Amino acid sequence: MFEAAVYVTLKKGILDPEGKAIMNSLRSLGYDQVEEVKSGKFFLLKLKAQDRTTAEEEVRQICEKLLVNMVMEDYTFELREVGR
Amino acid sequence: MFEAAVYVTLKKGILDPEGKAIMNSLRSLGYDQVEEVKSGKFFLLKLKAQDRTTAEEEVRQICEKLLVNMVMEDYTFELREVGR
Repeated sequence: MFEAAVYVTLKKGILDPEGKAIMNSLRSLGYDQVEEVKSGKFFLLKLKAQDRTTAEEEVRQICEKLLVNMVMEDYTFELREVGR
Repeated sequence: MFEAAVYVTLKKGILDPEGKAIMNSLRSLGYDQVEEVKSGKFFLLKLKAQDRTTAEEEVRQICEKLLVNMVMEDYTFELREVGR
């Protein structure tokens, strides 16, 4: 059993209205030391796979077919083997 | 300058309709090996701080005041010093 932590962020140059809104709120709360906020998505997947290579390939497919909009978003993931 | 990667997930027991929808889509795409999907949010903050302890305290405050709904969500973050 493997657990994949998938991090999805907007590609460079794509507007990030959520990040901007958070930035503005931080300013009005007085957190002037924050210089940049980027918002993104985070997914945890648990999957069965024979080995690490298979698991990696499956997570990659799932990301590119379903979780990530490849036109606007980048992703990375970390895979670790878990018990059970 | 520090960079904080903040991971926000739903607390145990809180319904995760997005995770459930993804799970259903994976089933219909034939990815039966996936056993669980949890959805969450991911933020990248860049902030100025004198030292690591100050940066940690600030990120904690920002999470609890603004980024995280402490009733329904859990968070963790990783902090690393970056150049510039």
